[in-house]
Parts: sequence; C-alpha cells; structure tokens
Amino acid sequence: MIAVLKPQTSDKQIENLSSWLKAQGLDVHISKGSTHTVIGLVGDTSKIDEDLLIGLDMVETVKRISEPFKSANRKFHPDDSVISVGNTSVGGKDFTLIAGPCSVENEEQVMEIATAVKAAGATMLRGGAFKPRTSPYDFQGLKADGIEMLIKAKKVTGLPIVTEIMNANHLSLFDEVDVIQVGARNMQNFELLKELGRTNKPILLKRGLANTLKELLMSAEYIMAGGNENIILCERGIRTFETYTRNTLDVSAIPMLRELSHLPVIVDPSHATGNAKLVKPMAMAAVAAGAHGLMIEVHNDPAHALCDGPQSLTPAAFAEVAMSVRKILAAMEE
Amino acid sequence: MIAVLKPQTSDKQIENLSSWLKAQGLDVHISKGSTHTVIGLVGDTSKIDEDLLIGLDMVETVKRISEPFKSANRKFHPDDSVISVGNTSVGGKDFTLIAGPCSVENEEQVMEIATAVKAAGATMLRGGAFKPRTSPYDFQGLKADGIEMLIKAKKVTGLPIVTEIMNANHLSLFDEVDVIQVGARNMQNFELLKELGRTNKPILLKRGLANTLKELLMSAEYIMAGGNENIILCERGIRTFETYTRNTLDVSAIPMLRELSHLPVIVDPSHATGNAKLVKPMAMAAVAAGAHGLMIEVHNDPAHALCDGPQSLTPAAFAEVAMSVRKILAAMEE
Amino acid sequence: MIAVLKPQTSDKQIENLSSWLKAQGLDVHISKGSTHTVIGLVGDTSKIDEDLLIGLDMVETVKRISEPFKSANRKFHPDDSVISVGNTSVGGKDFTLIAGPCSVENEEQVMEIATAVKAAGATMLRGGAFKPRTSPYDFQGLKADGIEMLIKAKKVTGLPIVTEIMNANHLSLFDEVDVIQVGARNMQNFELLKELGRTNKPILLKRGLANTLKELLMSAEYIMAGGNENIILCERGIRTFETYTRNTLDVSAIPMLRELSHLPVIVDPSHATGNAKLVKPMAMAAVAAGAHGLMIEVHNDPAHALCDGPQSLTPAAFAEVAMSVRKILAAMEE
Amino acid sequence: MIAVLKPQTSDKQIENLSSWLKAQGLDVHISKGSTHTVIGLVGDTSKIDEDLLIGLDMVETVKRISEPFKSANRKFHPDDSVISVGNTSVGGKDFTLIAGPCSVENEEQVMEIATAVKAAGATMLRGGAFKPRTSPYDFQGLKADGIEMLIKAKKVTGLPIVTEIMNANHLSLFDEVDVIQVGARNMQNFELLKELGRTNKPILLKRGLANTLKELLMSAEYIMAGGNENIILCERGIRTFETYTRNTLDVSAIPMLRELSHLPVIVDPSHATGNAKLVKPMAMAAVAAGAHGLMIEVHNDPAHALCDGPQSLTPAAFAEVAMSVRKILAAMEE
Repeated sequence: MIAVLKPQTSDKQIENLSSWLKAQGLDVHISKGSTHTVIGLVGDTSKIDEDLLIGLDMVETVKRISEPFKSANRKFHPDDSVISVGNTSVGGKDFTLIAGPCSVENEEQVMEIATAVKAAGATMLRGGAFKPRTSPYDFQGLKADGIEMLIKAKKVTGLPIVTEIMNANHLSLFDEVDVIQVGARNMQNFELLKELGRTNKPILLKRGLANTLKELLMSAEYIMAGGNENIILCERGIRTFETYTRNTLDVSAIPMLRELSHLPVIVDPSHATGNAKLVKPMAMAAVAAGAHGLMIEVHNDPAHALCDGPQSLTPAAFAEVAMSVRKILAAMEE
Repeated sequence: MIAVLKPQTSDKQIENLSSWLKAQGLDVHISKGSTHTVIGLVGDTSKIDEDLLIGLDMVETVKRISEPFKSANRKFHPDDSVISVGNTSVGGKDFTLIAGPCSVENEEQVMEIATAVKAAGATMLRGGAFKPRTSPYDFQGLKADGIEMLIKAKKVTGLPIVTEIMNANHLSLFDEVDVIQVGARNMQNFELLKELGRTNKPILLKRGLANTLKELLMSAEYIMAGGNENIILCERGIRTFETYTRNTLDVSAIPMLRELSHLPVIVDPSHATGNAKLVKPMAMAAVAAGAHGLMIEVHNDPAHALCDGPQSLTPAAFAEVAMSVRKILAAMEE
Repeated sequence: MIAVLKPQTSDKQIENLSSWLKAQGLDVHISKGSTHTVIGLVGDTSKIDEDLLIGLDMVETVKRISEPFKSANRKFHPDDSVISVGNTSVGGKDFTLIAGPCSVENEEQVMEIATAVKAAGATMLRGGAFKPRTSPYDFQGLKADGIEMLIKAKKVTGLPIVTEIMNANHLSLFDEVDVIQVGARNMQNFELLKELGRTNKPILLKRGLANTLKELLMSAEYIMAGGNENIILCERGIRTFETYTRNTLDVSAIPMLRELSHLPVIVDPSHATGNAKLVKPMAMAAVAAGAHGLMIEVHNDPAHALCDGPQSLTPAAFAEVAMSVRKILAAMEE
Repeated sequence: MIAVLKPQTSDKQIENLSSWLKAQGLDVHISKGSTHTVIGLVGDTSKIDEDLLIGLDMVETVKRISEPFKSANRKFHPDDSVISVGNTSVGGKDFTLIAGPCSVENEEQVMEIATAVKAAGATMLRGGAFKPRTSPYDFQGLKADGIEMLIKAKKVTGLPIVTEIMNANHLSLFDEVDVIQVGARNMQNFELLKELGRTNKPILLKRGLANTLKELLMSAEYIMAGGNENIILCERGIRTFETYTRNTLDVSAIPMLRELSHLPVIVDPSHATGNAKLVKPMAMAAVAAGAHGLMIEVHNDPAHALCDGPQSLTPAAFAEVAMSVRKILAAMEE
C-alpha cells in the first residue's frame, strides 16, 4: 500500500503517521520527491482501513498494491477451487449447466422442466421460491412450498438444486437445498453473508448491478472469513447507460475473475440481457471466454403461459443452447 | 400502461391477450397503426407485472404512463408529508440538520460532538453503531454498546437520534432510537423493508449507489405498503465513471423527488463526495435546490484522531456550514 | 410514435397539436384514458424531432415505436450487407481479421508486423498514423508519413489497410487507404461523418465510449444519408464504473446490432480491455457471439520496445489467437 | 509518478527500465517491498505517456501523483483567471449570466429574446447557428445566416454573443462572435481544439457526456498548449443510469474544478436536466456551489411555438430565475 502525502506535510506529521503505521505491525518506507512524499507500507495491509488513511488531512491519495481479499485470492491459492455439489462439482475442468424456471409455480411445472432440462444435459436445477421484486405489489414467490417442490424434483431427477435466500432466518428451510443463491441486490447484505459463512453449504454469489469485481470478491471474502469456502461467483450483467439490453453482461469479468481468484465463475445470460433472443449468443460468448458454467432460465410453455419472464427459453431452445455450448467447449479443448 | 405489439401479431393473439388483461380488471383500448398495434390499459395498472408483459413473445415494448408507486406518489397526496420526530419534524417548511460522527467510538466522543453540533444548530444527532463495511476485516461498529451511547447523548442534549439498522433481528435494540436509517447497500433488502413496514418508527431511506429514483420510491412503497408511512428519502450520491469524487451527488434528485412524491428529501453531502472540502459547497447546493434537510458527518478532532473518515468536518467547520445554510434558506424565503 | 399528454390537457390543445401533426404528413390516432390521452402517430415519423415534441408543455412523454434510423435498419434491408474491401469483403459469411500496430513507428516495424500477421491469417492491416491522444503532450502519430508506410506494406503483402482519420481536410491523404476508421471520440463529429458520406470509401465506425447502440446507428445513418452505405460497425468497449478493465466490452452489442441492422459488426478486444491477457478470451467471446470480424493490435517486440500499448500482442500470440478463433468458427458452423 | 512492478520482475529488467526513464530526464527512486518493487519518478512527468508505461510487461500499475495538465492547473497559477469578453468578463468575482434560444430561428425571434434577457439581467446572448443533432434528419441550424442574426442582436443590445462551432473550416464566420462554444460531443475533437488554440478568442468548453474532469482539463490544455489561454469550462450534465432526468448535472464538478484549476466554471442547467421545471432549482444549486456563471435557454413563446426545446424557459420565467440567483449570490457574500 502506498500513501502519497500532500506537498505541505511537515516532517513532524510524517513522523507521527509513520509511528502509528509501524504500531499496526507494518514496515514503513519513506521516499521524498521534489513535491510529494510517498510512504510505502509493507506487510499485511489487508487489515488497514483505506478510508481511514485517505481521511487524514495530510494524505493526498492512497493506492493498494496488494488486493484486500486474501481467502479468495489466487495468489495464495494458485489452483482452481472445485466445489462439490451433490453428485456433481463446479469449477476446474467441469462444466456446470444450471437450468430451470425463474419462479417455481406448481409441482407439475417444476417436474416437467426438471425432466426436460436433465434430458438436454443440465447438471443442476434452479428455481425461485423467494423472489426479490422491485415492487411490493409483484408476485413474491411460493416460499417454503416452492422449496418443497424443488426437493421433490431433485428426488425424481437426481439433479442438485439451487435456490435464492433473502433472509438468514429462513436458513432452516434450505437444509435439502444443494446450493444457496445470494441475489444481486443482496450482494452487500453483509449480515446475510456472515450467516452464510457459518454454514458449509455451497453459495452461488451473484455480482450486484453496480458492484465492481473487487467488491464481489470482498463479499466472497465475508463468507470465507466465516469458514465457508464453497463459493461460486456469478456474473449477471451490470447497470450501464445502454437501454436496448436490460443490463450489460460483463463478459470480461470471466477471465478477469479467473486471474484474480481461484473460485469458479459462472454466468447468467438470461437476467443480464432480459431478451430471450440474446441468451444463446451470450451463453456461447461466456463459454468461449472461459466460464465454468451457465445458469439459464427455462420455461415449459412461453407461448401460452402469461407468467414467463422475457428472458426464458423453452426446453427445446435450451437443448439447442446446450448443444452449441458443447461444440464450443469441444473446440476449446482441441 | 401501453403495450406495443410486434408487427406480425395475429388477431387471435391480440384477442387472447385482450381477454386476459380484461380478466385482471383493466379496460383495454386497441389501436392499430400501419405496422404496430398498440394496446392501452386503463385502470389500476400498479399491480400488473411489467416484466410479465414484456416477456410475451408478441410484445415489443411496454411503457407505463402512471407510476407504479401509489402511497409515495404526490398525485394521490398533493401536500408535503411532515414526519414527527421527537421534539422536531422533517418535511414541509421545517429544515432538518442531522449531524454526528460516522462511527460511535466511545461515550466521551459522542457526548462532545452531540453538545457541539447542538450548539451549532443541529436538530438531530447521527452516529453509526452497526457499520456496513466492504471488507470483513474493517471495523464493524460498537453495535448495541454504540446505541446505548447515542441514547445517553440524546438524554443529555435532547437531540433525537438516527442510526442505521442492518438486520431486522436487531429491531429490539432500536426502541429508543428516533429514526432508523436504511443504508444505501440495503435499499433493496426487501425483507428488511417489510419488517420496518410493520413498525411505526420514522425511517431514513438512503438511495442505493446505482438505484434509480423510481427504485428508491418503490423501496419506500415496500415500507408504506406495510402500514408505516413515516419515510424520509435521502440522496447520498450515485456511482458514475468520475473518479475525482467518490460518488456523484445527484442534486437534481431533490427537485425531481419533490415533484414525484410528497415525502421529505434530505441530502448527505459527506458520503457523496468523500472529500471534506466539498461538503460545504454541496450542502449549500442541496439547500438551494430545495432539500428538506442535510445529514453531515462531524468529528471532534480530525487533525489528530486517525479514525475519522475523509469526509468529516470538525465542529467548528460544521458551525460554519450551518451558518451558510441558514443564509441560503433566508435568501430563498425573501 | 406515441405521445402521452398530461392529464390537464384541454380538448383545444389536443386539437391544435393534432392539426399540426397532420400538417407534417402523419396520420393521428387519439385515445383517451381515464387520466391521460395518448396520441399515436402513423407514417414516416423518422423526420419528426423527438425533442421538439417532448418540449411541448402538454406532453408528458414520447415513445418511438419504429426506430429513427432507416438506411441502417434491418427491417428495410433484411439481408446482411457485405462490404467489398480490396481483395476481401466484410460481413455475411466472411470473417475479417484485422491486425497491426497501434501506431505506425517506422517502415521496418510496419513491414515486419504486416508480414507476420499475414502469415498468421490476417485479412487486413491496421496501423495508426493520426493518433487521437487525451494529452496534447503525448505522441500524435507520424501522420502523412505513417500512411505512406502503410501503403508500402500493402504493396508488399497485398493486405488492404485500415487507418484512422481525425480531420476531413486530410481526406486527400487517404486515397490509397482501403478502409477509413472513425475513432470512438469522433463518433458524433457530425461534420466529419457528413464529409465521409460524400466519399465511397468503406468506413469503420467505432462506437463512442458512452454512446448507445441507437446513437451508433444514427451516426452510421449520417454517413449513409450522404450516399455512402459502406459502413462497418465496431464495438470497442464502453465506459462503466468497473476499474479492473479500462472499458467494459459490450459483447451483447454484437447480436443486438445484428438484429437491428444489416451492417457488419466487428470487435476490437485490444482497446476495450487495455490488458493483453484479456485479448484472447474476449476475441473468442466476440466470435462466439457472432461478430463478423476482429481488430487486434499486434506489436513486433513488446518485451524490449517501450512504445507498445498495454494491450498489444506479439505476432506469435496473435497467431495463437487466430488459430483459436478458427476453431470457434468451425465449431459454430458444424 | 509511481510505477508498481510485478513481483517476478528481475533486477536486470528494473535496471533497463530505470536507465530508459533517466534518459527521459527524470530522477528515479527505487524502493523494494516484500513482494513488489515501486519506482518513483521525479521531474516533469507530464510528458511521459502513461499508457506506454502500463503497456510494459513488467509493470503492474502506474499512478500519477502530479496532474498531467499544467497550463490549466491551479498549482502553477493560484489566482482565478478572469476572461475578458467584450464589455464584460468571466471568472473571479464576476457572475456571468448567458441566455438565449437553443436555435436561432429568425431575426425577430433573436431580437425579441435578446432584448428580454438583457432586461432581466443577462450579461451575454447565446444562440445556436450550427446545431449538432443525433439524427441527420433533424434541423441542423441556420448556419452562417444564424450567426448574422446574432451579430445584429449584439449591435442592438450590446450583449456579447456565444455560439457553437462544429468545424474549424467555419472559423472565418466567427470573427464577430465573442465566445466560441465547443459542444459536449466535440470535447475530444482534438483537431478542432488545436485550431482554436491558434486563435485568441475566448472558448467556452463543454464537458462531454461521459468525460471525466481530468479529460475536460486535458482538453482545455490542448487549446492552451496552442497559446490561447481564454478558456471557460462548462458543466452540462453527465450520462448515468437515471432516466427521470436526461443527464445528471454533476454539481460537485464546480468546487472540484475550482480546486484543480484557475479557469472559470459555468453551468448549463437547461441541457443537463432536459426538463424546464428543474432549470430553476439546478441554477440555484450551481450558484450556491460556487459557479462563476450560468447558461440558460430562453424561448420567446414556449406555449405556442412548436420548436422550443423541452428545457426552455420563457423570458418571464428567466427573469424569475435571474432574481433568485441574485438573492443567493447576495446571501453568499454576506
């Protein structure tokens, strides 16, 4: 970590700051330029509060050289993490294909979709039971009943299940859930993250709409700091000024996260674009960029059902996407 | 609400959609253009799920004409809401000046600042007891002890107190807190909002870093839908590409929110800029743009204490800001 | 085009507006709802100035149903445009691979790179002669001399050449240039676009850092309105809040632009990421998402030369990217 | 300037880089940490190309300590610049009030508005003759005829005139124009900036929609590097995700630019918001935040004319804004 001091900083001030920093267990290197003095901090700076330093009157700017995340950092864990999930695993050489409805609506719907996506090659089933909605007047999900339906589908198909949690008080309902999803809007719900750190369940952590990759990794760090290292990162589109797409899928986040961290990275092309026609090309792009997996919304009858999301594919369209994904994966392994 | 249908939509499809919409209790007006058919929906469209309509294969785009928020909407509540808080009130003609430390650190600190900001004209005391931090390794606040210290300062100074909640399970600790703050990162923590809707405490709701004004009002709507209409909106800067300031204070949000809603709007210039030198000009700008109040961080000794945030003012600097604010307010009333 | 009128609009005002719109040659459909009146405009609304309508006191919002771009619109030109460039072509089934140095530095450098990229499969040579730089103190390019060097390389290798124009007064220097590039910062330099519309040279039009896809297509429309329909669109990353990458490559722009327009779409992964390690995965993602081509920076000796851009590949690394691209293309055709 | 080297950098590489940097006339300080080596550059680093350094394989990141702008920098020019414009001046203690129509439409319109805004206290007249429009089908302005009309209005009212240039080839038409405006879309049209640097006309330089303050100052630097130091900076709103306002007026840019630079800073609240109702509160906010002036669109008859922009005020509304502005200014001087 480097702190650049303001031109007018006195020697006395520099000495005071330097003593305080040494008392935090850091080595301090001071180098004076023609206008600015630069203080270099060597040691474990991950526990130094950057805001606190910037807040000092004498400090012009602060720059971290080493990243503030440790457990999630590839530098200290060079090999890819592989997370075991039921009869499958996420990360490394495995490719994960999660599919299912946006919302669980009824048992028949879940069972039909689960069977269809399994046949098409899905390795996990997703479905929303607790639904975060912008409006209090929109459908909020079937809650505990929805989770029960997913568990039944798991028993029949053998597919591990993924579903979202919105409140740590609901944790007891997730006992038979294989992967707990943290949604984009809760990525910095630190109280929830801490509670999930006390479990040993795999966590699928979605990037917030306006969160940087560093913040995503710091949120993973919250869970890992509690002892749960089973984290799957998920890119799902960020908020930009473009309006033709609902969000902008940040495909470059895939190779960037893989460089920064050992955690597996999957992509949700359905929510990112909000446009069923873009799901296939964006799924293929994510695979070509090195994603460890995809999470895709599938609905059994978008043509007649009124309750489908705009981004849902039919099982047949999903099967086609799965086929194309396999071709890209094969081409990349040649 | 208007739905524009795709050019190739058949009469049969239009009829099906129309019947379904009528079954939701809406009047349906169909107007056919040379290429597109437009369906106008008349009635209470606030309960129609916009995503569901966009999701239909035959629909090109959907546009709301009336806003999806009802309780927060000025159209149905033309007069400014005024929220009673202890011996003061927020909104309407009253000007609210909330001041205090970023984090509560110890009893002496809180008491000293509380006394100083009261003398300078503050009408409420703020202080963080539960602190949302990006890093799990940063200081997380004094929690219950911090709230106790604020309550003592309230008893001594008479100033009502504002502090942030991060977990609905902590609600019992907030009995003597006058205003409960929901931080920017929890603006769409819908489970927390619902719990706060079941209380009758005034809620200070901060805009999320990347949330639109419509989303802010929909989050207010979540609390109001539960029965608690005591909401104070707070603009605190949004995330943009600019890097000289930590965030970009959206001053235009003040008149825009006042046009859209009857709820009071206050501004936090300290967090928005992350730069103590910008606090005064931005506070004055907010007042000139019509804010109902300000929330400003004040620290007792930024020069020597290392734990101040970069955006904190000394009590003396705060007194100067308060004076300038009063001059602007007086000029606006002439 | 639909205009939603404010609730209090009088019948007289509606009649006046309606008459004026009819006088512009449009059919006008009026539908009155319980609160708002909606005016539907049928006919060629592309010449109606949207801002002018929004500016009227009685108008609440305006929504275009048909896009304001005509010549670039796939609706009026369903087949992919294929642009002839020297001995090659861009668009349709052809895949374009443009490679070369960021800046032309000297004859030897250009010749060496041109030979190497041709051997690796490049179909065009790029190189900057006029360089737009944020700082007036940075290297501004070799200008006319740089173009001469590119022309020599073209003669030796047979590769058509692409280079950027910054000033319409320089057009005479571009006689032997095959494709004229308009840089991101000049995407809305309308005077330059108009001049290029009067030529018949293929134009490679880069998306501005903060421009929407609609604006990109409107800038293409500027050139096409002048008679030059040889436009190649280029996505090169947009400005977002993320800081690990220089810009965020908007991969979803590829399928979206291909849906909206018949013009070919190529991608520049080098400038988008500003990070040589990300060029290969992003190039592959662009191909998998359906790009008609790639433009990649190649430098002859990044290890020793100090003048390479951060995003440049060596010829050997470029050959590896080209190979991987061909594998993805083959997999997509299976 | 500081360059942080990658952990694996060899001593030989460090020595090579160090020699090269010294050859550029800089002092080089090397400090080795436990993982990273940091190179500090002392001297005139404004001419070092930051991209070039970042591009080196051995470099992890680069951080400027001193700003890359010199002529525009307050550090080297502590006093406010005051720009003489006809019988008035911009900057320092003077307050500039520029008003006029978005587009010059005819002589009568310009004369009527010019007379009205002068009476209300305007110190300069603005009007668009060359109009940058997103669509080639929208009205492009009266061009040379428009400038003639502005010159007539100047002769009658004595108000200096401001109008936009889009092409350096038009410069001869601007002989009697007092201030030449560079629009947001041309802020990085470096060829135009260089040409304006060769004149001695005051230049009103608008911030681009997605340009940082540093980029704005670097564009000012382009003009100043050519010898013309008469620059007026203008904040006019930036592109964000918010949709209720057309752009987000960055009010914090005012105090931030005043800290970084000695150049005067004015604000255009009309274009920023795209909403006539927001012009007054945002004008007042800009004044309270320390702007040296305002530029406001005024139209003679928004109620009947169809050609007004959505953001235009009537002369009467403008007079009211001018009055409120004077009250705020007086309050700030007390």
